[in-house]
Amino acid sequence: MKHIVTVGGGTGSYTVLFGLKHLSRVSLTALVSMADDGGSTGVLRDELGVLPGGDVRQCLVALSEHSDIVRELINYRFSGGTLKGHSFGNIFLAALEKVTGDFVKGVEVASEILKVKGVVIPVTNNKAKLSMLLKNGTLIEGENKINHLDIQDVGIKRIFYKKDVQLNENAKRAILEADYIILGPGNYYCSLVPNLIVSGFKEAIGESKAQIILPINLTNKQGHTKHWKASNYVKDMELYLGKAVDIILVNNEAPSKKQIEHYKLQEGDGVLVEDDLKDKRVIREALLSHSFVAHSKADNLRDTRSFIRHDSEKLANCIKKIIASPVDGLRPKEN
Amino acid sequence: MKHIVTVGGGTGSYTVLFGLKHLSRVSLTALVSMADDGGSTGVLRDELGVLPGGDVRQCLVALSEHSDIVRELINYRFSGGTLKGHSFGNIFLAALEKVTGDFVKGVEVASEILKVKGVVIPVTNNKAKLSMLLKNGTLIEGENKINHLDIQDVGIKRIFYKKDVQLNENAKRAILEADYIILGPGNYYCSLVPNLIVSGFKEAIGESKAQIILPINLTNKQGHTKHWKASNYVKDMELYLGKAVDIILVNNEAPSKKQIEHYKLQEGDGVLVEDDLKDKRVIREALLSHSFVAHSKADNLRDTRSFIRHDSEKLANCIKKIIASPVDGLRPKEN
Repeated sequence: MKHIVTVGGGTGSYTVLFGLKHLSRVSLTALVSMADDGGSTGVLRDELGVLPGGDVRQCLVALSEHSDIVRELINYRFSGGTLKGHSFGNIFLAALEKVTGDFVKGVEVASEILKVKGVVIPVTNNKAKLSMLLKNGTLIEGENKINHLDIQDVGIKRIFYKKDVQLNENAKRAILEADYIILGPGNYYCSLVPNLIVSGFKEAIGESKAQIILPINLTNKQGHTKHWKASNYVKDMELYLGKAVDIILVNNEAPSKKQIEHYKLQEGDGVLVEDDLKDKRVIREALLSHSFVAHSKADNLRDTRSFIRHDSEKLANCIKKIIASPVDGLRPKEN
Repeated sequence: MKHIVTVGGGTGSYTVLFGLKHLSRVSLTALVSMADDGGSTGVLRDELGVLPGGDVRQCLVALSEHSDIVRELINYRFSGGTLKGHSFGNIFLAALEKVTGDFVKGVEVASEILKVKGVVIPVTNNKAKLSMLLKNGTLIEGENKINHLDIQDVGIKRIFYKKDVQLNENAKRAILEADYIILGPGNYYCSLVPNLIVSGFKEAIGESKAQIILPINLTNKQGHTKHWKASNYVKDMELYLGKAVDIILVNNEAPSKKQIEHYKLQEGDGVLVEDDLKDKRVIREALLSHSFVAHSKADNLRDTRSFIRHDSEKLANCIKKIIASPVDGLRPKEN
């Protein structure tokens, strides 16, 4: 039995977990960012004082062994009335936090109801307000604001939480017991980094014996990581981790013209991540999804959700091969 | 295996089903009124065009074999924000109707998720608008309006649905296959009668070989059935059924002073149902609950929910004895 821990937010972790769920002889733990404060999640957070459920919801859905209809239910968004724009799953997690008095306990009950294969753990139990200080002294507060601003022109001085946000004890244990830790893919500053800057995360990673796998994002985010190449992700990530990653997964399959057009419409030019790595840690495989994602019209964030994505099955197969050959794996031999 | 069918609305059916769930060698089917248009159910019905989930929700909760916390979740009411006053279970059923495209299918999926022991069937698949014509010609439309008006002074000429409302096919089958059909307890005109007047219900009951059990309500509803005695319920009910009931369950245990005081505060004087029956079909037992029900402050209907109730376990034990002695049962011998 191999222990795999994923680290990320909603969509990216969904993609990884949905594929990994079908592997045998692995235990799965999803560590999930708690910085989300936009969309339906943000409204519930403001109105009910609950912790953000959106990213956790997507991981629960990915790992649910219930029928498709139950997974559809959890992702369903109301399109009218006072519930308009709310995802049912977010309401579900908010109600569970209220009933159990504790978000983490609520996620456990949700996992039981949804027959989740694996464990979903919020990276922290604290209220996490993501903040960013730019090089010109501007302070941006809130994940949703950061997500929608161009921060790249001025440059980032520091990304942090306003109040101390501690690593959840169960999350720490999972990191220490992991055989493999998969970082991402996902929105770099708004889904991935918010996990890495939680107090105690870096220390736990430092102590862990796990192989760290970094699937490089397929696209750059406008105003955040535009023009980044694969090497930028590796270097930047390693600064947060305080150690080197072990395996770098790079997609070597070109997106279709249709996919690129869609993406350019959304994000502008120059957003595909170029592979500039000359590194023995790199595994290159075809990891691209060719299916279009139909977004719910009731989803206020639909325009910001990516069209070029990893394929769950391809990603899972690649990780399966890594597990099967733990020493050399798929890694090219060092010359 | 004995087939038991219950007929009613929310609270009353909950009480019966919660007790019956623990009996062995019985199959349970709950037929549920679809006339509810008040409270959280009414808002969702108006805003989203969904069928009313409130009564179904209570039956699902009664029959759920999940942990207590899951049952608490389904009954949880939000106390703030845009979700204020909504029961989580109502939102759950509304989302399921939207996702499956069909309320009845949605209830099936809900039953699967909630590990329901038995089957919950909406008495009809049609949109049911309860209407009442008073003797002075006044027409009242909507269950919630009827529930809150004094209709007894003027008197009822007819209670009906504005459009034809047909018995659900599965409900019909359950009635025909039943060994026992339990009518109520519950709000007479707003929970019980709305089942009996569905097109095809009377015919199905007429054709059924089931023993019909009538647990007499413990209290009369102000403005609806005030001053009714047990015999009034039996006679009135039999008019709707077009046939005699087989067994009449009457509580012979006096409510406590505290219970009576609470009830009088709520409903005024003269609301306890007097036992005036001299009938060989009557079984008299102690059926009263001595526990207080703590209502959620977020429940707009809390003041109308009754304090003097049947005890689930006592009711179930009584029915168990009836099943065990199908011929003579507990019924006093005819003199």
